[in-house]
Amino acid sequence: MGVVVKKGSMQAHEIGLKLRDVGDRLGLEVCFEDTGVDKKIVGNVCTFSASSHELPERVVVIGGDGTLLRFLHNIPHDVKPPLLMTIRAGRRGFFFDVEPYEAEERFVDFLRGRYTVFEYERLVASLNGTTTNPALNEVAVLSYEGKVTRLTVSRDEEKIYSLDGDGVIVATTAGSTAYALSAGGPILDPELQAIVVAPLNPIQLHLRPVVLNVNSEVSVEVRSGSSEAKLVVDGNVLGSLSPGVELRIKRAFSPVRIARFGVEEFYERLFTRILQYW
Amino acid sequence: MGVVVKKGSMQAHEIGLKLRDVGDRLGLEVCFEDTGVDKKIVGNVCTFSASSHELPERVVVIGGDGTLLRFLHNIPHDVKPPLLMTIRAGRRGFFFDVEPYEAEERFVDFLRGRYTVFEYERLVASLNGTTTNPALNEVAVLSYEGKVTRLTVSRDEEKIYSLDGDGVIVATTAGSTAYALSAGGPILDPELQAIVVAPLNPIQLHLRPVVLNVNSEVSVEVRSGSSEAKLVVDGNVLGSLSPGVELRIKRAFSPVRIARFGVEEFYERLFTRILQYW
Amino acid sequence: MGVVVKKGSMQAHEIGLKLRDVGDRLGLEVCFEDTGVDKKIVGNVCTFSASSHELPERVVVIGGDGTLLRFLHNIPHDVKPPLLMTIRAGRRGFFFDVEPYEAEERFVDFLRGRYTVFEYERLVASLNGTTTNPALNEVAVLSYEGKVTRLTVSRDEEKIYSLDGDGVIVATTAGSTAYALSAGGPILDPELQAIVVAPLNPIQLHLRPVVLNVNSEVSVEVRSGSSEAKLVVDGNVLGSLSPGVELRIKRAFSPVRIARFGVEEFYERLFTRILQYW
Amino acid sequence: MGVVVKKGSMQAHEIGLKLRDVGDRLGLEVCFEDTGVDKKIVGNVCTFSASSHELPERVVVIGGDGTLLRFLHNIPHDVKPPLLMTIRAGRRGFFFDVEPYEAEERFVDFLRGRYTVFEYERLVASLNGTTTNPALNEVAVLSYEGKVTRLTVSRDEEKIYSLDGDGVIVATTAGSTAYALSAGGPILDPELQAIVVAPLNPIQLHLRPVVLNVNSEVSVEVRSGSSEAKLVVDGNVLGSLSPGVELRIKRAFSPVRIARFGVEEFYERLFTRILQYW
Repeated sequence: MGVVVKKGSMQAHEIGLKLRDVGDRLGLEVCFEDTGVDKKIVGNVCTFSASSHELPERVVVIGGDGTLLRFLHNIPHDVKPPLLMTIRAGRRGFFFDVEPYEAEERFVDFLRGRYTVFEYERLVASLNGTTTNPALNEVAVLSYEGKVTRLTVSRDEEKIYSLDGDGVIVATTAGSTAYALSAGGPILDPELQAIVVAPLNPIQLHLRPVVLNVNSEVSVEVRSGSSEAKLVVDGNVLGSLSPGVELRIKRAFSPVRIARFGVEEFYERLFTRILQYW
Repeated sequence: MGVVVKKGSMQAHEIGLKLRDVGDRLGLEVCFEDTGVDKKIVGNVCTFSASSHELPERVVVIGGDGTLLRFLHNIPHDVKPPLLMTIRAGRRGFFFDVEPYEAEERFVDFLRGRYTVFEYERLVASLNGTTTNPALNEVAVLSYEGKVTRLTVSRDEEKIYSLDGDGVIVATTAGSTAYALSAGGPILDPELQAIVVAPLNPIQLHLRPVVLNVNSEVSVEVRSGSSEAKLVVDGNVLGSLSPGVELRIKRAFSPVRIARFGVEEFYERLFTRILQYW
Repeated sequence: MGVVVKKGSMQAHEIGLKLRDVGDRLGLEVCFEDTGVDKKIVGNVCTFSASSHELPERVVVIGGDGTLLRFLHNIPHDVKPPLLMTIRAGRRGFFFDVEPYEAEERFVDFLRGRYTVFEYERLVASLNGTTTNPALNEVAVLSYEGKVTRLTVSRDEEKIYSLDGDGVIVATTAGSTAYALSAGGPILDPELQAIVVAPLNPIQLHLRPVVLNVNSEVSVEVRSGSSEAKLVVDGNVLGSLSPGVELRIKRAFSPVRIARFGVEEFYERLFTRILQYW
Repeated sequence: MGVVVKKGSMQAHEIGLKLRDVGDRLGLEVCFEDTGVDKKIVGNVCTFSASSHELPERVVVIGGDGTLLRFLHNIPHDVKPPLLMTIRAGRRGFFFDVEPYEAEERFVDFLRGRYTVFEYERLVASLNGTTTNPALNEVAVLSYEGKVTRLTVSRDEEKIYSLDGDGVIVATTAGSTAYALSAGGPILDPELQAIVVAPLNPIQLHLRPVVLNVNSEVSVEVRSGSSEAKLVVDGNVLGSLSPGVELRIKRAFSPVRIARFGVEEFYERLFTRILQYW
C-alpha cells in the first residue's frame, strides 16, 4: 500500500500518517511516495518511487488534481498504474471525492473492497518513435508567444481540417471539462469513452470541436511555413515541434482506475466547481 | 425492390424509370413508393406504401435529404427500415453520394452486393405511452413565438442542467452536423455512436453542449411556470408540450442502413457542404 | 404625475397607493395608468391612458421589466415618453433599482430633482411606410416553426451578410444584455451608444455579431425562396414578413429617460442577475 | 515624401523605385525608410528613419499589414504619424487596397489630393509611468506556457470581471477583425469608434466580450496568486507583468490616417479575406 502526499501540505502529511496508523493496526505496511513526502514531518517512513517498475498495487493520493497528475506523470508509460483512492487536501479537485474528515473510514472501505471503480482513459503522443507518458486530461499543440501556428489535424489518416491560430487541444473524456471546455469544447459524459478535438482561437471561424471514437488515432501536423509549436501534456511543456513534424495521439494502453465511495453526481460536481470561479 | 422519388422532380422520376428498366432486364420487379410518385409521369407502375408493415427489402431513394426523411417518417416506429441506396436529384444531400449520371451502374452494384453499409442510429421520443416515429437527425423541444421555455434536461434520471431560452436539441451522430451544429454543438465523427444535447440560446450563459453514450435515456421536462413548448422531430412540428410533462428520448430499436459505393470522405463532404452557403 | 402598476400585483398596487398619499401631502395629484390598475384594489382613483397624446410629464413604473415594456409599447411612436422612475415589485428587473422599502423616500427625491437621468436609445422598424412603436431591447426577425429563414442584413445599403437559420436580432445597448446576449452577442457598455446585430443559429458557421454606429440604418431583407418570417419587437410578435420584403430598422427619435438614485454598478448588476439563473 | 518597403520583397522595392521616378518627374524628392530598404536593390537613395522626430508628412507603405505595423511601431508614441497611402505587395492586407498594377496612377491621385482619409484609432498601454508605442490592432495580456493567468479587468475604475485563463485582448475597431475575432469577439463596424475586450478561453464560462466607448480607460490587473503574464502589442511581446501590477490601456493621442481611393466595401473585403483560409 502506497501513499502520495501533496508537496508542502501539512494537512496531507497528517492524513498520510493517520492512514499509516490504520495500516499498522491492520498489519499492513504503508509506504510514502518519495518525491512528495517531507521526512521532517513524517519521520523515517518507508518510501517508494513512482518511476520504478515495482509499484504498490494500491495507492492513496492525498491532495488535489495537481498531486494526482504529478504522480501519474512519473509512472513510465508502459507500467499499469495502481488502483487509486483520492483524498482531498486543499481546494476541490475533479478526481477527488473523499473529504479529510472521513479519510480513515473510507480507507478501511478501500482495504475491504467496498467501493466502485471508475476508469479514466488516457492519451499518449508519439513522435519519431518516442512516446510521452500518458495524459489524463489533454495533449495540446500550442503556439509560442502569440505567433500563429499552422496545423493540420487528421483522424486515422483522413484530414479533419487545417487550422491557423493558437493551436489545438486533444482531450480525454475527463479532460473535456478542463482546458478543452474553456476552448469551446463540449462536455463528454463520463459514460462516453471518446476523444475531443478542440481548435484554439482559429482564424478559420467556421471550425468546430470534433468528438471521435476513443480508438481513433489523431495526428497533428505542424505545416511547413508555420512557426514552431510546443507540445503540452496536462499543462506541462514537453518540447518543441518544428514545421514538418507530425505528432500521433492515441489511447494509452491502460486507463487510470480510481475507487469511489459515494454516488457520483457528475453534473452537480461539475457546475458547482465552475461556480467556484464566480 | 422499391423506389422512392422526390415529389414533383422530373429528374428523380426519370432516374426511377431507368432503374425499373434495369430491373426488367434482370427479372426484378421495381415498385414506386405511392405518396411521392406522379403516375402522369411514370405511367401505371406497381406501387407500395411506406406506412405498411410489408416493405420491400431494399429501397432506392432518389432526391435529397427531404425525400429520405419523408420516406423514413412514414415507416411505423416498430418496423425495421429496408436497406437503402440513395441517388441525388437536386441539391447535395448529406446522406446522398450517388450522382445521377452513375445511377444505373451503382444500381447494379447495389443488386450485386458491391457496397459498404453505413448505419445511422436514430432517436425516438415518448410521452405518456406514445412514441414518435424515429428521428434521423434530432428531436427538439422549442419555444413558441420567441417566448422563453423553461426546461430541465436529465440523463438516466440524473439532472444535467436546467435551461431557460429557445429550447434544446437532442441529436444523433448524423444530426450533429445539422441543426445542432448551428446551435453550437460539436461535430460527432461518424464512427462515434453518441447523442448530443445542445441548448438553444440559453439565458444561463455557462451552459455547454453535452455528448452522451448512445444508450443513454435523455429526458426533457417542461418545468412548471414555463410557457408551452413544441416538439419538433427532424424539422416537423408534432405537437405541444405543456408545463409539467416530461419527454423521454432514446435510441430507436433499429438504425437506418445505407449502402455506399465510394470512399467516404466525411470531413471533406461536410466542409464542402458548409461552403455552399458562402 | 402618473403611476403605472404591474397587472395583478397586490404589492405594486399598495406601493402605488402610498405614493398617492405622499402626493396628497405635497399637493400633487397622482393618477394611475388605466390598463394595469385594478380599481377593486385602489378604489376610485384618477387615471390616464398611455396611448393618449397627453401624458403626465413624470411617471413612476412599479413592477418589473414586463410592466415597463408594456407601458412604453402603448405610447404612440411619435410621442416623447415621460421621465420615468422605476420601483421593483416582484423579481429583479434590468431597468429597476429602487426597492419597495425605500419607495416613498426615493419618490420624494424624484419630486425634488435629486437623481441622475439615464438615457436608453430605442429602435423603430418600418415596412412599406408603416413604423412600429419603439423597441427598448430589440427588433428580431425570426423563423416560424423551426423552418429555415433566409435573410440578407445590410447597413446603410452596404450588405453585411446573408444568413440562413433561425433569424437575426437587432438590439439596442440595453438590449445587448437581453435576448441578443443569449444568441452570442457581446455586452455593450451603457456608455456606448451602438446597435448590435446578432445572427441566430446560422448555417453559415463563420458569421459573427456585428456592432454598428447608433446612427446606422439596418435593413433585413427576407430573400426570395425563404419561408415566411415573423417580426418580433421586445418579445411581441407584430406580424409576418413575406419573401421579398425589406425591413428598415433605425434609432427612434427619442430615448427613454429613467431617473436613478444610487451609483450604477452596471457589471455587478448584470452578472448578479445572470447568477439568479443558476 | 517617404516610402516604406517590405523587407526582402523585390516587388515592393520595384514599386518604390517607380514612385521615385514619378516623384522625379514632378520635382518631388522621394526618400526610403531606412530599416526596410535594401540599397543593393534600389541603389544610393535618400533615406529617413521612422524613429526620428522629423518624419515626412506623407508616406507610402508598400507591402502588407506586417510592413505597416513595423513602420508604425517604430514611430515614437508622442509623434503624430504621417498621412499614409498603402500599396499591396504580397498577400492581401486589411489596411491595403491599392494593387501593384495601379500604383503609379494612385500615387498621382495621392499627390493631387484625390482620396478619402480613413482614420484608425489606436491604443496605448502604460505601466508605472512608461507608455508603449500605440497598438493599431490590440493590446493583449497573455499567459505563459499554458499556465493559468488570473486577471481583473475594469473600465474607468469599475470592475467588469475577473477571469482565469489564457488572458484578455483589448482591441481597437480595426483590431476587432484580427486576433480578437478568433477569440470570439464581435466585428466592430469601421464607423463605430469603440474598444472591445475579449476574454481568452476563460474558466468562467459565462464571460462574454464587452464593447466600450472609445474614451474608456481599461485596466488589466494581474491578480496576486496569478502566474506571470506577458504584455503583447500587435503580436510583439514587450515584457512580463508580475502579480500585483495593473496595466492601463487607453486611446492614443493620434489616430493613423490612411488615404483610400475606391469605395470601401468593408464586409465584402472582410469575408473574402476570411475565405482565403479555407
